[in-house]
Amino acid sequence: MRIGVLTSGGDCPGLNAVIRSVVHRAVVDHGDEVIGFHDGWKGLLECDYRKLDLDAVGGILARGGTILGSSRVQPAHLRDGVERAKGHVADLGLDAIIPIGGEGTLKAASLLYEAGLPIVGVPKTIDNDISSTDVTFGFDTAVGVATEALDRLKTTAESHQRVLIVEVMGRETGWIALHSGMAAGAHAIVVPERPFDIGELTELVGKRFSAGKRFAIVVVAEGAKPREGSMEFDVGGKDIYGHQRFAGVARQLSVELEERLGKEARPVILGHVQRGGTPTAYDRVLATRFGWHAVEAAHRGEFGMMTALRGTDILMVPLAEAVETLKTVPAERYAEAECVL
Amino acid sequence: MRIGVLTSGGDCPGLNAVIRSVVHRAVVDHGDEVIGFHDGWKGLLECDYRKLDLDAVGGILARGGTILGSSRVQPAHLRDGVERAKGHVADLGLDAIIPIGGEGTLKAASLLYEAGLPIVGVPKTIDNDISSTDVTFGFDTAVGVATEALDRLKTTAESHQRVLIVEVMGRETGWIALHSGMAAGAHAIVVPERPFDIGELTELVGKRFSAGKRFAIVVVAEGAKPREGSMEFDVGGKDIYGHQRFAGVARQLSVELEERLGKEARPVILGHVQRGGTPTAYDRVLATRFGWHAVEAAHRGEFGMMTALRGTDILMVPLAEAVETLKTVPAERYAEAECVL
Amino acid sequence: MRIGVLTSGGDCPGLNAVIRSVVHRAVVDHGDEVIGFHDGWKGLLECDYRKLDLDAVGGILARGGTILGSSRVQPAHLRDGVERAKGHVADLGLDAIIPIGGEGTLKAASLLYEAGLPIVGVPKTIDNDISSTDVTFGFDTAVGVATEALDRLKTTAESHQRVLIVEVMGRETGWIALHSGMAAGAHAIVVPERPFDIGELTELVGKRFSAGKRFAIVVVAEGAKPREGSMEFDVGGKDIYGHQRFAGVARQLSVELEERLGKEARPVILGHVQRGGTPTAYDRVLATRFGWHAVEAAHRGEFGMMTALRGTDILMVPLAEAVETLKTVPAERYAEAECVL
Amino acid sequence: MRIGVLTSGGDCPGLNAVIRSVVHRAVVDHGDEVIGFHDGWKGLLECDYRKLDLDAVGGILARGGTILGSSRVQPAHLRDGVERAKGHVADLGLDAIIPIGGEGTLKAASLLYEAGLPIVGVPKTIDNDISSTDVTFGFDTAVGVATEALDRLKTTAESHQRVLIVEVMGRETGWIALHSGMAAGAHAIVVPERPFDIGELTELVGKRFSAGKRFAIVVVAEGAKPREGSMEFDVGGKDIYGHQRFAGVARQLSVELEERLGKEARPVILGHVQRGGTPTAYDRVLATRFGWHAVEAAHRGEFGMMTALRGTDILMVPLAEAVETLKTVPAERYAEAECVL
Repeated sequence: MRIGVLTSGGDCPGLNAVIRSVVHRAVVDHGDEVIGFHDGWKGLLECDYRKLDLDAVGGILARGGTILGSSRVQPAHLRDGVERAKGHVADLGLDAIIPIGGEGTLKAASLLYEAGLPIVGVPKTIDNDISSTDVTFGFDTAVGVATEALDRLKTTAESHQRVLIVEVMGRETGWIALHSGMAAGAHAIVVPERPFDIGELTELVGKRFSAGKRFAIVVVAEGAKPREGSMEFDVGGKDIYGHQRFAGVARQLSVELEERLGKEARPVILGHVQRGGTPTAYDRVLATRFGWHAVEAAHRGEFGMMTALRGTDILMVPLAEAVETLKTVPAERYAEAECVL
Repeated sequence: MRIGVLTSGGDCPGLNAVIRSVVHRAVVDHGDEVIGFHDGWKGLLECDYRKLDLDAVGGILARGGTILGSSRVQPAHLRDGVERAKGHVADLGLDAIIPIGGEGTLKAASLLYEAGLPIVGVPKTIDNDISSTDVTFGFDTAVGVATEALDRLKTTAESHQRVLIVEVMGRETGWIALHSGMAAGAHAIVVPERPFDIGELTELVGKRFSAGKRFAIVVVAEGAKPREGSMEFDVGGKDIYGHQRFAGVARQLSVELEERLGKEARPVILGHVQRGGTPTAYDRVLATRFGWHAVEAAHRGEFGMMTALRGTDILMVPLAEAVETLKTVPAERYAEAECVL
Repeated sequence: MRIGVLTSGGDCPGLNAVIRSVVHRAVVDHGDEVIGFHDGWKGLLECDYRKLDLDAVGGILARGGTILGSSRVQPAHLRDGVERAKGHVADLGLDAIIPIGGEGTLKAASLLYEAGLPIVGVPKTIDNDISSTDVTFGFDTAVGVATEALDRLKTTAESHQRVLIVEVMGRETGWIALHSGMAAGAHAIVVPERPFDIGELTELVGKRFSAGKRFAIVVVAEGAKPREGSMEFDVGGKDIYGHQRFAGVARQLSVELEERLGKEARPVILGHVQRGGTPTAYDRVLATRFGWHAVEAAHRGEFGMMTALRGTDILMVPLAEAVETLKTVPAERYAEAECVL
Repeated sequence: MRIGVLTSGGDCPGLNAVIRSVVHRAVVDHGDEVIGFHDGWKGLLECDYRKLDLDAVGGILARGGTILGSSRVQPAHLRDGVERAKGHVADLGLDAIIPIGGEGTLKAASLLYEAGLPIVGVPKTIDNDISSTDVTFGFDTAVGVATEALDRLKTTAESHQRVLIVEVMGRETGWIALHSGMAAGAHAIVVPERPFDIGELTELVGKRFSAGKRFAIVVVAEGAKPREGSMEFDVGGKDIYGHQRFAGVARQLSVELEERLGKEARPVILGHVQRGGTPTAYDRVLATRFGWHAVEAAHRGEFGMMTALRGTDILMVPLAEAVETLKTVPAERYAEAECVL
């Protein structure tokens, strides 16, 4: 068999572990050939690739980033390129293509599958917003990095009597905020799924101070927004790719809370450290399993599917379903975290 | 409601997170009273306890160990004490008892439930050997610690042309070996579920050297044993509690491999570091959820059950079922790891 | 002897280790009594303190922050309070006062010593800007945190073809930038001691791209400024304490570099995580030694001095000298780092 | 100029950082050529080497181990090979040779310098036992790894009422034991420089239990020995290289202490994890500076010297002096640690 693999979209710890696993399983166990396209879909469209043998994936298991590079391709651009992609796939004699990526990538994968390409997807997202899988690799690392930072910030806030507003990743969903906030014992967790009322939030934090506590930690997802009319809020604009560029909810919240509480409040924006670097053991194992099962699915001819974790099992689920809806934080999960306020 | 909580058995990162969560949920949200028994079942038998309010659990979320202490109680001793325990529970006016522990603890919990006590169990084990739950807290931390050590050892082995035999925890099951071995890219993983043949293992490692590699990492669970007749093997004796005291499989393997391969082989025994210290974010979230749901179960009067993770949900499962069989590494999971050899 | 200890100024990993060491050495070895003033100089001025015995400092060695709390007191306020402070010291029968703090604290300490108080200072600064000592505790931890973040960011920048401008702490001096930049192999290091020319910086980073590299990491100290006329620059205003509030050099640099290079450039501001959390082993040892030697100095009656590291020895140096000049990055040290560009 | 570099002796975090720094400084700043000999002196004796350009050292700064490999060569073998080495150096047109290694390597380096070779040494040792330099790279990482393990073990010992005897590296000197023990707040620190009396040690640990504490942590250097006649002790034998192979002081101590104290005592042997893996920021900076200054010394023609840290400066010191005596833990340093017992 001849398999092409590519990584697309934002960075995510574990991408290299998937690539390595695909190559190990395919080359060692099946005697396949594997090539890697450079910079995501771009590599497929421009037929820019290299051969991936065992040496090519030596020592990458624990490395962040992706040895294949990544890029964002606009959907329209990809749609126009379907025929070109099919041509390259035919020329290269590929029997399967394994794109590793987030929601956008998987939508594109679904499209290409419907156009006739033999696609087996592998979901990746640090945000944990992909339906049909319990979780994907990258999320555990992101939560771990955020939690470690929160652990550090807590001692500072406590000694110096501050409110710290810590902004973590999550544009549409609050999973990282929820999990890191629970893990670090944050005093309030603000997620995009539940627009916040600044008055209520102030009261919540204020109660801690009334109870004699000297500090508070608020974790806020970057995509969180106030309830309509709750406070003035700059939502930011669009960047050149049409993506939302946020104006900084932590910054705006800290100004507002400082004023309302009369306590020093400071924003901390964790940013890209959450997406880089060595993956946790959890993410490496999951990524390795995804790669392994993607190769198996290819050999079974199960195309138009993606790998998914359900409990402790890896299953294949239809790409089309997987990208239908975003997985958001449900009310019950949020309720579990409220007890820590 | 009045709830008693206790921790029993070996150390496990996340115990304090459960205790804290029980107190938060019960005291803040339900207005319950919570007491903590000291040193596991011993505290219940001797009516040795203290009140747990919010201050008592302040700052413990990220701390290893257990603020309540733990101990091992021999089953016979506990059986003899059932009436005494019932008396203390009545005297203290307890409506629920939440024991947090491993297989032995849960068996005892099942026994006490059958004797009429209002038990809601919370499973803990770094070994991941409890059936009925996808995983429990502690395992992720143990795997993380082992993986970090393996990452470090790999560079040393590589530069210095060695075979390192790294012994991780796991007396009956090889889960820590499997996951840390996969996460770190070990070249062989040896688990108790599959007695090893020293000849095959030598050949496997030897192939790496024949292929021009200069080092190898073998991960071995402490309870692994050679296939009958495969090599001389000292299985160790029993300690004063009747527990198996292992003679050191890594040590014996390294001597044997050094001789057979003619390469420097060294054992590394990771030991107790795998059970101590701050839990990973994953374990803190899971432990917090377990504590929350145990309190809810108590309020719903669901006794004789324990918390369990299934997929992303926390369910209650019967204690009796949970401890019936040990969860061992199945062949399919082992096969996934073989590809990394 | 009766000793008072206090912590003052911004947070710094290792404060608790000094407090613990003072108590251990004084109480256990000398049979002294130790009290701790709350919230820095404020505690001394308001006679707000508590007794510190061995139990009070149990388990704090590895904890960030300060169990005594801290605050910033304006110099004028302290000057007005000298007589009050002297009165409290006399009332409490204190034979020595050990203030642990940065430049501002040590200046205040010097003032109080000249006013007749028995002061032994312990220097702390994550910025490494105190003269007369090779280094103080806190710096190693801050550099470690920054380096770990840079390690993570590097893989992301590489895979995603970006310029990342990473802002680390350092208002007047570039030590954290220099050390973390060297440790992580940054491609440019920008420090306050050397106003940067935006043209030169662009050229430097641009050369990497011309040479075929796909990314660059620039580390910049928060207090760095462009050379006069080099680019428009918002230096920010003063906060309510009269401290400089920076407008964000990384943010401004990233906009400018993106435009000039035509490459995606993103700012990352590490912020307060650099000052919080568990100290490195290095900082714990140094902090412990400082506490030990401060007690010894007090017993020898060496007042008006502070502890200092010189090579591997702890010496006592006059407070007055220590705060005379800020320790800045010398040209030779900067030159050593240039080779990594 | 044409420079040869090699790494010799046991593994040490920071070796790659030195190699990288030598290449950066030499190639980029001086326009030199650099070659790297494989597997230490062996590479020089067998003229086995490769060219080291910028690409060859890309991405290695944070990596443990050594890309050049290492080996132990017996002194006699090297002495016999001096003429051969000189021949290779002449053939290759080398103007300088930079061996990076520990005591044995530096002795060999001194010998070769006296035989006429242009040697500039760079000291490495995780043990911190090389005189003439305040410290070398590798030690900080080893202490950090040991301290992190001790932090973890402390919570376990505390919850489970144990004495843990933790064996760290250090055959001749107790620096790692001293620093990690101080950093983690160990209750006893046992070093080779001071043979221990088992009775005194038992008493010391026993006092903790009498005072109501439930656990104790003893850090012991692998080379520690009991005072003559204090207890039976197996010192172990020699390995095939004539090196001491220790029989395990922690194991022997734990048996003895368990018996004498009547408390569960367990040994933990940290082993090779202390020498592997990514170096701390401190070690990376020091290693980078050593590499830089070694190249400068070569260009100034200062041969027969090695780099050394004195305070914050890098100096060159004669190789002959540096290896004359081992740097042991002095009484004053040990006394500082006693206060934490």
